[in-house]
This record gives sequence, C-alpha cells and structure tokens, in this order.
Amino acid sequence: MDTTYEQRFSQNARRMRASEIRELLKLTQWPEVISFAGGLPNPAAFPTEELRGVIEHVMAEHAPDALQYGATEGHNKLRDAIARGMGIEHDTPQSIHNILITHGSQQALSLLSHVLLDPGDVVVTGAPSYLGALQTFRAFQAQIEGVALDESGMDVDLLEKKLRSLAEHKRLPKFIYLVPTFQNPSGVTIPLERRRRTYELLCEHDLLLIEDDPYGFLRYDGEKVPLFKSLDEQERVIYLSSFSKILAPGFRIAWMAAPESIVNKVCLAKQTQDLCSNTFAQYCIFEAMYHDILFPHIEQIIRIYRRKRDTMLAAMEQYLPDRARWNRPEGGLFVWVTLPPFINTLDMFAKAISNDVAYVAGQAFFPDGGGQNTMRLNFSHPSDEMIEEGVRRLANVIREEIEEKEKALEDELIGGF
Amino acid sequence: MDTTYEQRFSQNARRMRASEIRELLKLTQWPEVISFAGGLPNPAAFPTEELRGVIEHVMAEHAPDALQYGATEGHNKLRDAIARGMGIEHDTPQSIHNILITHGSQQALSLLSHVLLDPGDVVVTGAPSYLGALQTFRAFQAQIEGVALDESGMDVDLLEKKLRSLAEHKRLPKFIYLVPTFQNPSGVTIPLERRRRTYELLCEHDLLLIEDDPYGFLRYDGEKVPLFKSLDEQERVIYLSSFSKILAPGFRIAWMAAPESIVNKVCLAKQTQDLCSNTFAQYCIFEAMYHDILFPHIEQIIRIYRRKRDTMLAAMEQYLPDRARWNRPEGGLFVWVTLPPFINTLDMFAKAISNDVAYVAGQAFFPDGGGQNTMRLNFSHPSDEMIEEGVRRLANVIREEIEEKEKALEDELIGGF
Repeated sequence: MDTTYEQRFSQNARRMRASEIRELLKLTQWPEVISFAGGLPNPAAFPTEELRGVIEHVMAEHAPDALQYGATEGHNKLRDAIARGMGIEHDTPQSIHNILITHGSQQALSLLSHVLLDPGDVVVTGAPSYLGALQTFRAFQAQIEGVALDESGMDVDLLEKKLRSLAEHKRLPKFIYLVPTFQNPSGVTIPLERRRRTYELLCEHDLLLIEDDPYGFLRYDGEKVPLFKSLDEQERVIYLSSFSKILAPGFRIAWMAAPESIVNKVCLAKQTQDLCSNTFAQYCIFEAMYHDILFPHIEQIIRIYRRKRDTMLAAMEQYLPDRARWNRPEGGLFVWVTLPPFINTLDMFAKAISNDVAYVAGQAFFPDGGGQNTMRLNFSHPSDEMIEEGVRRLANVIREEIEEKEKALEDELIGGF
Repeated sequence: MDTTYEQRFSQNARRMRASEIRELLKLTQWPEVISFAGGLPNPAAFPTEELRGVIEHVMAEHAPDALQYGATEGHNKLRDAIARGMGIEHDTPQSIHNILITHGSQQALSLLSHVLLDPGDVVVTGAPSYLGALQTFRAFQAQIEGVALDESGMDVDLLEKKLRSLAEHKRLPKFIYLVPTFQNPSGVTIPLERRRRTYELLCEHDLLLIEDDPYGFLRYDGEKVPLFKSLDEQERVIYLSSFSKILAPGFRIAWMAAPESIVNKVCLAKQTQDLCSNTFAQYCIFEAMYHDILFPHIEQIIRIYRRKRDTMLAAMEQYLPDRARWNRPEGGLFVWVTLPPFINTLDMFAKAISNDVAYVAGQAFFPDGGGQNTMRLNFSHPSDEMIEEGVRRLANVIREEIEEKEKALEDELIGGF
C-alpha cells in the first residue's frame, strides 16, 4: 500500500508541517553549541529537594487516589487552591467551576481551538506571537491576522484599524490571542492603559480574548500590571497559566480560568482528548501549594533569572555591534534583538551554528511574514558563563554578517554604475 | 454578552454533548452504592511500594531531565524499551521510530481523529464499542457505522457485507476501530481465524485498522491470541496500548505503534496538542520496566482480577434469574449481561440506584442504537465482598423489573381483548 498515507490524511493534517525552525533547533542540541534558542526553564530552578518531600508525602498518604484516574475538570483541591489563589494574587477570585486543569497550556490552546474554530475562522494575534499557538490555530485551519507590536506590546491603534477592516469584510475574529505579560517571543508587556483600550475594543466588536500568561509570576523589576482577566466585566477573557515555568514543566500541569459555560464545553472536548490530566502530578502540585513551597520557590527562581537576564543584557551591551538593538524585559525568559534590515537571521543561522551559538530566527513567530532581521534569545536555560561566552560568539557572527552584507551591497552599487 | 456562548462554538463543539450515561455515573459515586459502572483498576493492584522506590530513584538520579520538557515523540529510553518489548511479547518487533508516547490511549484516539478524519468521514466500529472512542470520533464529525458482535467479537460476515455496501455508496471508512482482545464493553476476544479474515477485508478494501489493546496483558485463562499488528504485512495497523491498566492510570502514559509516516504526522498533531507527555511519569515507567518491576507486577494483577472475575461469575450463577445471560471473559475488566428483550436497562437504572447498586446501561456503547436490554459490569474495582453483595442486589432489581414488565405486558394483553 501507499506508505506515505498522504491521501488518507485529513484537511487539518495536510496543514500540519514540520516547522523549518523546529528542525533547525535540533542542531542546537549538539553539546558544543551554546543555545539561546530554547524556551526551557533552568533545571537549577526546579525545587528538586522540596518536591522529593512532597512526592514522598503523596505516595505515603494519597497513592490510591493519586495513581488513579481523576475527574476531567481536574483534582478538586488543586482547582480550589487555584481559584482562591487568583483572588489573592490577581484580585480576580474565581469559583472552582471556572477552573479547568489542562496538560500544559498548549492543551488549553488545542481544546479552545477545537471548540471555537471552524475552518477559515479568523484569529488575531501579535506579530510576532507564540509559535505553538500559531501552529495550533493553523492545525484547525484558522486564518491568522497579525497585528504589529511596539515596545508596549500589541499596537492598539493598529488593532483598532485591523478590527474595523475585518468587521467591514464580515471577518471578525473568533478571538484575539495575546501573551500580554513578558510576551513570547518579544519579552514586552502591555501597560494598563493599553489593556483598558484593548478591552474596550473587545467589547465594541463583541469578541473573546485568550490571555496566555505563563510568565506573569517571573517579574524581575517594575510594577505588576493587572491582568486582562481582572478587567473582565463582560466574561470575555479566557485566562491561561501554567506551573511549567514556576515549578516544573515535566509535570505538564496548567490551568484555564474562564466563564463556566466555556469551561463546561472545553471539558467535554478534554474528555475526548485525554479523559483527565496526570493525577499524580496534580496531587504533587496541590501539596506544593498547601505546604507553602510554591511561592518561596518562585522568589528563588526570580533571583536566578534576574541575574541571568542582567548577565545577558550586560554582555550584549559589551559585545553586540552598535547597529543591533534590543529590549530590556522586566520579566519572562526572552530578549528580542533587531538587526539592520538587510540582515536575514534565518540565513545567518548556519554561520551561528558553525560558531557554536544558536538563537531562534524571529520570522518563525510572525503569522504572515516579516521579522527577517529579528531573533529571540533565551536567558533562562544557559549557565551564566555560557551566556557571556555565547553573546560574545553571537556578536562576532553578527559583526561578520553585517560586514559581508555591506560589502555585497557596496559591490552591487559599484556594479550598478 | 450572551453567556451561553452557544453561537460562538465550532461545528465540532456543537456535536459535543454531556453523555446521559456519564451524568448518571455521577450518582454511582455515593458511598452506599456498590458500583459495577466504572472501568477503573483497583488501587490494590497499583504497585505502590515498588513505585515509591522507582520514584525516589528518578528524583535522585534524573530530576533535571525528568522534571523538564521532553521530546514530543516521548522519552527515547521508554520508546526503545516498548519497541523491543513488542518483539518479545507480541512477536512484532518495532523500531523506535514506530513508537509514539501519548497521554493515555484516549489522546492517541484524539490525535488519530485529528489527522485522519474530515467531517462526514465514515468510521466502522463494533456495536457495541468503547464509549470514549465513539465520543472522540463524533467530536470530529465522523459518521459511525456499527457492526454487531457475537461471542467472538465483530461478526466478520456482517463486516464483509457492511464494507461491500459502503463501497457501493463510495463511503468506505477511513479506518476500522477494534478492541480485539477482552473488548470494552463486551469482554469478548476475536479468535485468530477471524482476525485473519478481518485483515483480508482490510487489504481487499485498502483500509487502515486501529487496534486498541489496553487489556491484552490481563489474561486470566485461555491461550494468547496474536495481535492484528503481528499479522500486518501491509502496514495497515495502528496499534494502541497503555500502562493505565497494568501499572497506574494516574500517570496517563500510553503508546502507539504505527508505520513511521503515520507516527510523524501524529507527532506534528501532538506538538500542537500538548508539546510532550508528562516527562516525570515516562521516566518512572521506564525505570519500572528496567528494574523488572512491571512484568512480575502484571502477574500479581492477574491473580487479583482473576479471583474477582470468578467471584462475580459465581455470584451471577447463584443470584441472577435464569433469563439473564452473560459471557465468561478470559481477561479484561468487564462482564456483559443480556436481559430479556422487553427490559430497558437505562429505565431500570433508577431502581438499581435506589437499591444501592450501579452498572452501565449497554445502549451507551452502541453507535447507532440497540442494546437496550444489555449492561456492562466491571469486576476490577469493587472489593470481593462488594462484588457478591452487589450482584445479589442487582439480581433483586432485575427480578423485580422482569416481574413488573411481565405484569404490565399481561395487563396490556388482557386490556387488548
């Protein structure tokens, strides 16, 4: 039989392609490469010792339940702790019925796509935006409309224009997808005033918002900005967050806080997708919250990552050529770099790898093109020494690439005369 | 705003409804009810002590990796152990590239639906068949065509007729879905000869088969029957199995063994669905295999469940009225009961609950109606004492229901004169 099976795949599946970027990322796993390409937490920021105690307690006291199937909605004690925690931390208390436990926020994106998107439906995202979200929306045949960011996140004037234009064509989006705080990939945060204006646009056009917030707790300086969820008087916001960046991603435990009828529908979809999330991990995370391990641990992560961010920014200051520009994120895992417009960071990638340093070329994050001269650098995963050495290598790569391109442009100009 | 959100949901989501059966199952959780309704393993069959050692070892030796994100395909050591294990146990050795780790087999069903099914596509299943599979196929708008079972599983003559008729109408299925061994819900196993004939039909009509095998290791007597996978000379079989019933469902770790190009496509879908399965649980399960805990433990489960099955069968023999019929499964978790045709087990459920005993009404498992007089009984979860007492209660309920219905039929006949 035909062993490619191509003609057997669904329309959805035919849209799924191995991303070029993900394939390139495999190269970054060679041991000699210093990689700023991943988005991984640092294992030094896992509370391994504390978790050993928690796990031992779960196995001693709760094994029959923790090893069993659980409810699709999630472990009720964990849902309740999260619901109350959102009141304490974000001034937006939830009922347990608003909380659904998911297998990473990625599953929430997939479930929401399943229950909200028909083929051809429009979704509005930042340009750039989180790659995993773009891939999921595409896997349900969504049409993604990107809105450019500035140093304060999605440009609300551009958003207003975009929505007006989409409304005129009767193509209003099913939802807007934002990572409003320490965005992946750009690191930027939307200030309160802009959140308010964005929320008004939601109301004006009767839209839903997915507020994806995996990094919100990782603030290294500056003032906390209220969540969209806390501004949500009209039940338009579906809030996602995760224990991956504040405890351990290996557990794959995240949550959604949403209006109850959305939670109920998503829960039906989850029943068909996996019956329930990992029960054991849910018990462990609840115990970590209950025994007050989580928040002191977040303080510790913040200290580690703040230093790494500062190390990276200092090295960039010291080594990167003048014509590179970058931001200073107040939290999260990423710094965003913009090079002169004639540089293509995807083309430059081979040179970087042969100099044993890696990044993600920014164009991967743009839903409809652009960003060829940008890159995302991760500072959470590499060691402090690696950060400095990696930035030094990267600076040489960039400097060389700029010189070569300028030489080529010059030759072209001369050739043109 | 409209807080039902109904008009915002996708076509897929509008097909998702809370199953009446699942709602009824909530009633079975009252402590005074003896429930044969679930499909849960017995916590006494979890290797809790052995797992404590395994977990301690993983935390001591592998925490930085076991708590981190992992590859979408799964932990390579676990994939490799499964690939080789399928050679040893099932005479169908796999390459690591044929193995994908999933978050329960339910996730595999969801991923396969996503990559294989367009709205309106046909799927052939047993009538009855596993409810979670039916719900997943429906959530992708499949048309399900059921083929009746007899005491040897899906009737291959009926299947032949069904496929011929579907072919005539150019509606051949994207795949056939079977639980060939100790089927859920019926407990029946397809013998080798019938597997061969079924496989020939696959080849004749150029079809794929999903062989869902969560119970295969739980054989209490009789001879092992070769997998469809082991007959698969034409790469038509997508094999699913799980650690849920042989280790612990709370870990949510299962696997797919399939042709490489199907694994690759499903892996792209999984990337959008959850990035990767629970890494920690994968490490624990690999260590349980490596330290030879798994297979001795399966022997122990078999001893426990064989006794429970025998207890249930003996109690049924003793208490159930003559006009109830049931099978004697050689493995798995379920016994299937057929009552006289004028009994509706869904109608009878209220009476059962008020007598503090529960089952699943069989009609839930029939993709296109039928089975009103059937029920599924689970023997793995209740204690041995509960099994006997529960069957006694159930027998009274059935006897009473038969008497009432016969009285009503008699009155009707008399009234008709």
